[in-house]
Order: sequence, then structure tokens, then C-alpha cells
Amino acid sequence: MYRSHTNGELRIEHINQQVTLCGWVQKSRDLGGLTFVDTRDRYGITQVVFNMDDNADLCKQARSLGREFVIQVEGKVAERSNKNKNILTGEIEIIAEKLTVLNASKTPPFTIEDETDGGEELRMKYRYLDLRRNPVQKNIRLRHQIGLATRNYMNSLNFLEIETPYLIKSTPEGARDFVVPSRMNEGQFYALPQSPQTFKQLLMVSGYDRYFQIVKCFRDEDLRADRQPEFTQIDCEMAFVDQEDILNTFEGLIRNLFKEIKGIDLPKVDRMTFDDAMKYYGCDKPDLRFGMKFNDLNEVTKNKGFKIFDEAEAVIGICAEGAAQFTRKQLDALTDFVKKPQVGAKGLVYVKCNEDGSFKSSVDKFYSQEDLAEWAKTCNAKAGDLLLVLSGNLDATRKQMNELRLHMGNLLELRDPNVFKALWVVDFPLLEWDEETNRFHAMHHPFTSPKAEYFDKLETAPGEVKANAYDMVINGVEIGGGSIRIHDKQIQKRMFDLLGFTEEEANEQFGFLMNAFEYGAPPHGGIAFGFDRICSIFGGSESIRDFIAFPKNNSGRDVMIDAPAKIDQEQLDELFLSVKEPIV
Amino acid sequence: MYRSHTNGELRIEHINQQVTLCGWVQKSRDLGGLTFVDTRDRYGITQVVFNMDDNADLCKQARSLGREFVIQVEGKVAERSNKNKNILTGEIEIIAEKLTVLNASKTPPFTIEDETDGGEELRMKYRYLDLRRNPVQKNIRLRHQIGLATRNYMNSLNFLEIETPYLIKSTPEGARDFVVPSRMNEGQFYALPQSPQTFKQLLMVSGYDRYFQIVKCFRDEDLRADRQPEFTQIDCEMAFVDQEDILNTFEGLIRNLFKEIKGIDLPKVDRMTFDDAMKYYGCDKPDLRFGMKFNDLNEVTKNKGFKIFDEAEAVIGICAEGAAQFTRKQLDALTDFVKKPQVGAKGLVYVKCNEDGSFKSSVDKFYSQEDLAEWAKTCNAKAGDLLLVLSGNLDATRKQMNELRLHMGNLLELRDPNVFKALWVVDFPLLEWDEETNRFHAMHHPFTSPKAEYFDKLETAPGEVKANAYDMVINGVEIGGGSIRIHDKQIQKRMFDLLGFTEEEANEQFGFLMNAFEYGAPPHGGIAFGFDRICSIFGGSESIRDFIAFPKNNSGRDVMIDAPAKIDQEQLDELFLSVKEPIV
Repeated sequence: MYRSHTNGELRIEHINQQVTLCGWVQKSRDLGGLTFVDTRDRYGITQVVFNMDDNADLCKQARSLGREFVIQVEGKVAERSNKNKNILTGEIEIIAEKLTVLNASKTPPFTIEDETDGGEELRMKYRYLDLRRNPVQKNIRLRHQIGLATRNYMNSLNFLEIETPYLIKSTPEGARDFVVPSRMNEGQFYALPQSPQTFKQLLMVSGYDRYFQIVKCFRDEDLRADRQPEFTQIDCEMAFVDQEDILNTFEGLIRNLFKEIKGIDLPKVDRMTFDDAMKYYGCDKPDLRFGMKFNDLNEVTKNKGFKIFDEAEAVIGICAEGAAQFTRKQLDALTDFVKKPQVGAKGLVYVKCNEDGSFKSSVDKFYSQEDLAEWAKTCNAKAGDLLLVLSGNLDATRKQMNELRLHMGNLLELRDPNVFKALWVVDFPLLEWDEETNRFHAMHHPFTSPKAEYFDKLETAPGEVKANAYDMVINGVEIGGGSIRIHDKQIQKRMFDLLGFTEEEANEQFGFLMNAFEYGAPPHGGIAFGFDRICSIFGGSESIRDFIAFPKNNSGRDVMIDAPAKIDQEQLDELFLSVKEPIV
Repeated sequence: MYRSHTNGELRIEHINQQVTLCGWVQKSRDLGGLTFVDTRDRYGITQVVFNMDDNADLCKQARSLGREFVIQVEGKVAERSNKNKNILTGEIEIIAEKLTVLNASKTPPFTIEDETDGGEELRMKYRYLDLRRNPVQKNIRLRHQIGLATRNYMNSLNFLEIETPYLIKSTPEGARDFVVPSRMNEGQFYALPQSPQTFKQLLMVSGYDRYFQIVKCFRDEDLRADRQPEFTQIDCEMAFVDQEDILNTFEGLIRNLFKEIKGIDLPKVDRMTFDDAMKYYGCDKPDLRFGMKFNDLNEVTKNKGFKIFDEAEAVIGICAEGAAQFTRKQLDALTDFVKKPQVGAKGLVYVKCNEDGSFKSSVDKFYSQEDLAEWAKTCNAKAGDLLLVLSGNLDATRKQMNELRLHMGNLLELRDPNVFKALWVVDFPLLEWDEETNRFHAMHHPFTSPKAEYFDKLETAPGEVKANAYDMVINGVEIGGGSIRIHDKQIQKRMFDLLGFTEEEANEQFGFLMNAFEYGAPPHGGIAFGFDRICSIFGGSESIRDFIAFPKNNSGRDVMIDAPAKIDQEQLDELFLSVKEPIV
């Protein structure tokens, strides 16, 4: 044993005990006669004192310690004269009697402090040093706790964690599959799973009934800011259930996690249809920490001579409470915001609802005080509020207004990371039309069941068919989604057909699943949660990368180990592969 | 909700309750007026009764059910007249009132029974049906339980489960790496980890102190009978520990698992040096459920005119208790056994220690009764025992005798799968000489620390250096192994040098680790357990495949989904790859 206690363990009741501590030198202060060294480990920080009068050699040795040296200290616990209430061990210190340097350290390229001076790139290259910092350790610990709590909760409900294979077969969404050449099967490839979808469905066919798995998934795609080529899911499936059972079960999981990890009693999770989410928030993952619901102003704005509104498919207004005092400059900034190419509106109309009951708008030329009063009424605005109005094509206007609403939420500080609003979005469309490829795509995936009452429309109006599909959204972030699955071979065939698979393609890719459906497949459904995402929500951060021990950068590279990398010709030969010469 | 209860749930106290059950038709018996249907789910089997007199239509519907149909039954719980004590619900039955077929089933290609009529190949192709069988479900449930118990135990000791990346860099043992071409990084490859070794060491450098992970690992190699290209490890690492701490901690884990999962109090785990294991059992993973230790007969067999022994480097005997009554035929079979090419001995000498105190041997021509009495004394044999003696080159003879000893253990039924003998094998050599490549290989891996007292020998006699390396062996199976690691850059460099790495190669492959060692690396060590292997030991089976939901066959193929498979040229193009034409 290198140590008798950790650096977070010693208290006033340990005084006079002989102890041995190990840790990293956080800092040392040389006060002439006394040298203080703070030693750190993941449990805390303890102050060690070296006294020149007592032992000059030892004190000199202590003076030579640099930051991040790994040391072992033997000594006696003593009460501190000036106690430090900010740390757990702040009432005591160690009077050093022996010091061993277990390993020296070069000066680290950035400070190992809560607020470091290291930039993102440097910290990623030396991730093993970044991981020493307290905020990062807190995140990694949180992730461990959420994982364990999830497993114990699922187990308490009789779910079995079952490992599904990582070396599987490439699927039609194959363009995003990572593939793995096989040495033993010449010219053939495995694929890494984008999700264990088909396997968990097979487990339902096998009668496992309640399955879950915390599992890595893989997607080889251009990485948006907060995506990773490998990510972790809490993947779940149940048999003999309908949508209601799934929503209740997994709402239970999320509420249990909030209770156990954060001590928060999350209320019953509200539900909203996809159509309502689009209508009132312009997106399928509304942030419900604040209001500012969309209001349809079509009726009250038309035919007053304002051509832009008259010609618009949609005129949508939101009411920002208490924002009537926004200055000209602030309003201009809002206009600039909506005109940014990422948002794409042509302009912004505002109406200030003044305290005296009058209105001031950017379209006073066209609308009377009475007209604007009608707008305000439609938007439930009161004196002191600010109306913001966008118009144009319905889909585009909703999208723009969603951006503006979130922006206003930020400006008015209505998006508190310590407040949690969860929501089920339900009744998603089964299909979405893809203009590029001119065919339907599955909105969720090809295994999602249409709602029974829409079966007829599969033939006549597939675009209108609603699915038994649902997402869980917390604070405007989709943390999970799932569906009731098709368990009937004929419906599954029809679905592949709608999605433009030939029968041959469907059989080649998913024949095993459709065959399985012929041997007594039970009704089933499930959900997959983004584990990285749940961790980041619980940790109050926007970035999943902060919750992954060794993340990749936006180009999918691990800059610490320098991967991916070239491999030997010999290795390629064994795989029957050659890398094409780049075209110069 | 499709059901009110499972098929394993109803008891005598539920009588007269209205219930709804779902499940698969295990079997149905038509007794004219009554039809009995056994419905099955993973919780059990319940008998459902259809009465022709009560409801002829319903009864006829029941008669049309086939094996493995998925049904939903509503009815009332009633007491059975002839109770079945073999099943949990054997005291009751359901008087059916309504029957819904949730899905039909074709006749399955093999019976879904504990003892099935399906061969291995068929069961693998229809793995989703094989997984319905009770013995397989039991294994999958056991695996879930062991995983959860491991996680909770490790958590109770302050270990954090930390996920390490799956997309890493190819290493020098690269020939066995699965590689993954990157679309975003032209001509470059990731590798799938053979173990998270370097990452867990970095986590120690990062101060995480106690890490574990239940994690998939990958190895692209010719598969021996019981290997899988993807397998699962319980991977663990600790800092500020010596070998003793690690042995105690993980002995604790294994004993806790035995207690919690099997209700067995495993005694303190014995320890044996590698040298002793080789000397007394001829292998580094002795099965200690039985004795038959090796005895060195060199001294008592030499110079009596038996040329074979006189010229042998080693003469080794074992004593099979009570086996003196072996017949001529049985002894011939033993000789045949040792002469099999897989064992490779030239012949077998036996000595029967007769009940009357006399000896009968196959070499009576050369040895007197007094000589043979000396052998028996050396082997601690008593009247009624059988001595078996092999001779030749030391290493070969040990190997052969190990095979013979295990064979005798089987014959004498000394290897009870319900008895568990755990053992730490310690003090492994650091290096082993490889005749083929004419250089040293790391016996464990290149990060294993030599024992401090052997540091000098690293230069003078590397082959004699012992390492701080250890294996845990249960019933002759290695279930885990690990070592104290090198945490000093200079020693690590020297180690790479001994293993024939150039400095450039070492830096390219492991520069990040050696750099990390310069920033305050603590002393650390760890272990990795084969999770599939632990499950199979606990389940009393020899095959890990029985404990994997979707295993691959000996060619690394998943015959159910038919992977690996060819991929599109388009997909290859995106990866800048071409598959070479096979040479005809």
C-alpha cells in the first residue's frame, strides 16, 4: 500500500494520527522557515507542511518539488491554525516526516486548475492532463453515476442487459457505416453498428421481453459541432407493449435519474403532438423552460395594405414579456439576427406594447392602434411586452421564428441550465418526402409502425400517415427517441416498398429480420437515449465532448494518439486491399 | 398493456382472478372436450384450458394454434385438479374466455425445448429461435447478473467505469488488429482495440486512481474452437498500488461474485509461482480440483539399465489414487492417449501399487520391487494407486504430463463443474524467447514491469527476469491476468528496446504514452478478466459461445445475418479503397 488515506479523507478527528498520502503537487509555497505543499488526488487536496527548523534536509527536498510531481508523504495529522473552509480537509494539515518522489513531472503545457490557461487544441493533445482538472473529473464521475443508476433501475424493472455484436453487416444507410475488412473472409467487410436496432428486435422475437444495453454506436459522417463518430446509447426494447407503456416506463427511468443523481423531483412529463410542436414552437424539440408560444397572426394582419404580410403564407408572432423597453439598438440587433444567413428571414416586425396602453410598431404606417391591439390580444400580450413578428412561407417562417424564440430566451435569461423541463413529442409522421432523391424517407427508421388508424392512407396518402413514434426532449434537446415497431412481415415488406427498396434489396439487407417475423414475433417497441447527451444535460453543459474521456475532434481525429493513421502495405495485403492513389 | 401477468407469476392465491396472459404456444393437447394450451414466456409456462362445452368456437380456435404462435389469452385463474410440481404455476390453470392470435408462426426448424433436435449450424442460422430455449435464456440472464454484480461491487470500492474509445490506432501487434478505413481522412485507418491497455494507463496518469470497464475487445486472428473475434473484458486499473493490493482487490471481486451469484463462499485464493505451476502441473493454469502433482523421478529411475529413462532430461510421475485396478485395456487406452499427435509422447510407463504391497509395472524387466517401492514413495503412492510415468525433454514431458493428468482427472471424475478452485499464478517471466523471430517477446505485454530485484538482469540475462505479472485461474481456466505496469519513461524505453522496437517505432506507436509518463505518472497496475469466460465458468459450461447472444462461428462469420459480406464499389470509392482481384 502506497497510502493510508486519500487527500480528501482527513478531518479534525484524525489529529495526531500517523498517515501516508500520495498525490500530485498542486502548488507549493516557500515561506522561508516553512514550506507548504498542497497534494492533490481525485478525492481532494491536503496541505503538507515542511519545517526548516525541524528537518532542514526534508524541507529543502520539498522546495525542489515542481508542479504535478507525484509524491508520497509520511507524517502526522495536525490541526491548522488558519482553517480553509473551501476544502474538505481544510481543518487539518500534515506535518511531514518523510517525502518520496514517486515520479517527477515536466512543467505541464497548461495549468491544472478549474479555469485553465490551455486552449481547446492543446488540451485535446494532452487530454491525459486535461482529465486531471476538477471540472472534467466531475463530468466523468457523473457519467459513471448515471450509467450505474440506469443499470440498477432497469434491472429493478426486470430488464436484462444483453450485448449485441459490434461486427455486423452494412445496411442501406450504408453510406454512413464504418466498415471493417475481414482477413479471414477475403474481400468481405463487417460494418460497425449505427445502432443495435435489428438485434434488439430479434431479441424480442426471442422472447427476452425487456432488453436494454448501454452501448457504443458508430456513424461515419461529417461531424457537426457536437457529434462524435462513436457515441453511446441507452438502447431499450420491450415486447407486449403499446406506446403508452413505453412512455410510462422510460419517463420512469428519466425521473429516477433526476431524483437519484440530482435530487430533483421531475414532474410528470408533458406530451405534445409533433403537429403542435411545429405549430407552437416551430421545431420538434421545443424548449419549454419558457413560453413565447407562436401565435397565428394571419387573420389580424391581412388586408391592411401591408403587401409583405398580405402575400405571406404565414404571419407568426411571439410575445416577449416585459421586453417593451428594448432600445432601438437592441431591436436592430434582433433584425440583424433574423437576417443572418443561418436564420434567413428577410426582416422583422416588432410591436412595443407601451405601459400607457399605446403601441409602437415598425409598421405603424399600415396598422392602426386598434389593429395592433388586435395583434396584442391574439398574442396574449400585456402592457410592457414586445411582439416580434415574422412572415413568409410556413415552414421557413416557423424555422426562423424558432431561432428567434430561442435567441430571445437567451437574451431574457429564460434558459436556466438548473431548470429542467421534459416533454414527450408524439405522433410523428411516418415518412418525410425528400426533394433531392424524390422519394419518401423513414422519419424515424424503416421498422417504425404506422398508427393502425392510418393503415389505409399508406396506399392513398403516405405522407399523411402518423407513426407510433416519440421523442423525449429536455430543455430543447432531444435526448431520446423511439417507436412501436412493425412485427408483421407483410407490413414490413410494404414499408420497404414505400421507401424504394426492391424486394431483392430488402431481402438481402433485412431478410433475417423478415424471416424472424414469420416465427412468432410479438408486438414490440423501444427507445434509444443519447447517453452522452443525457450526461451533458445533467452536467449543465452544452457540449457532449466534455463528458467523454477521450473524444475526437471535428474531423473525427484523436489528436492525442494521432488516429486515424496510415497502415503498412503488409497489413493492407493481408486484407486484400489497396489504397487508391489520390488524383493530383 | 397486452397482459396483466407473466406466465411465471400466477399462484394458488390468484384463483378466481380475471387475467390476461401473452406468450408463445409451447404445446397444445386436444383431448376432445378439452384443449390444453401451454403458453410460454421468459418467466415460465402457464396452462390454459379451452372447454368445448362452454364455448365451442373458442375451443376450435384454440385447436388451430400451432407451435410458437404468439397469443393473448383472457380468462379466469382456476385451481388445477392434477397439479404439476415441476413448474412454478403448476397449481393453477387459466379457463380461457378470449383468445387473440398476435402473430402466427411457421413450424420452427427445430424444437424449442431444453434438449433440442437442432444441430449447431441450424441453431446458429436461426439464433433468434435458439435464444428462446430455456438453457440459453438462463445463460443470457446469468451474464446480465454477473455484469451488474461486477459493476455494483466495483462501484462500492470507488472504482469509476470510464468508456475508452473504440476507434483507435493500429499497434505493433497490428497483424491482429481489425482496421477501420476513415472516409473523412483519406487513406487512413482506425483500429479496433485489442484491449484498452494504453487508455487505462493514461487514466492512471490522469489521476482516476480506480478505473474499470466492461468492454468489447477485438482480435482478427484464426479462431480456435473457443475464441471469438469480438469478446468482452472486465478491464481494471489502479494507481498507488503494488501487486499485493491488486491481488486482494480482485480476489475480492471474484469471491463476491461467487457469493452473490452462486451463493458459494470461495475460500481465500491460493497462490503459486509460475515456476511451481510448471514444475508440479506442467502448465501455467493448473486445475486444482484434484491432486496428481508431478513428481521428479529422475533420481530413483536412473542407472538401472533402462536406456529411455537414462537418456531423458526429465522423468516425471503422477499418482492416480485408487486406479491400480485399471485393466490392461484401460492402460492401453492411456498409452494410445499419450501417443496421440496432439499430446506427442513416445510411450507410457505405469506401475500398479497392488493391495498386497507388491508392484506390477510395464518396466519390470529393468526395475526391482525395491526400485518400484522407491518410485511409489517419491510419488506418495499407497496400495491401490497407479503410477504413470513419462520421460524425455523437460518442457515437452511437462506438457505431455499435463495432458495426461487432466485426462486422468476426467476419467476418475475429479473435475466436478460444481466445485470451484481458484488460484493466483504469480511471478511470470517478463520475456519469452521466440525461436521463429529470434528475439524476445513480452510474455504479458510491453508495459509490464520487471520485478525491482531483477532490474540488473535486464541487461545481463533478460530471459531470467521475473515480472510483477499474475493470472487468476479457476478450475484450470485462465479467467484473468494482469501486471504492475512500468511508469517510468526510461524503463519503458529499455523495454521497447529489448523487444526489438527501434526508437522511431516506439515513438510512433507509443509516443503519447511515453510523453504522458513525463508529466507525473503514478505507480499503477491492473488486470483484465475474460467476461465471456467468467460467465461460462459460472454457468458450468466449457463453451463461451453459449453465453453470447449472437456469437460468430469458427470462421468469424455471423451466419444469421450473413456477415461479413461484400460492399458496393460506391462505398469502396468513398473510402479510397479497392479490393484486389484474387490470384487465380
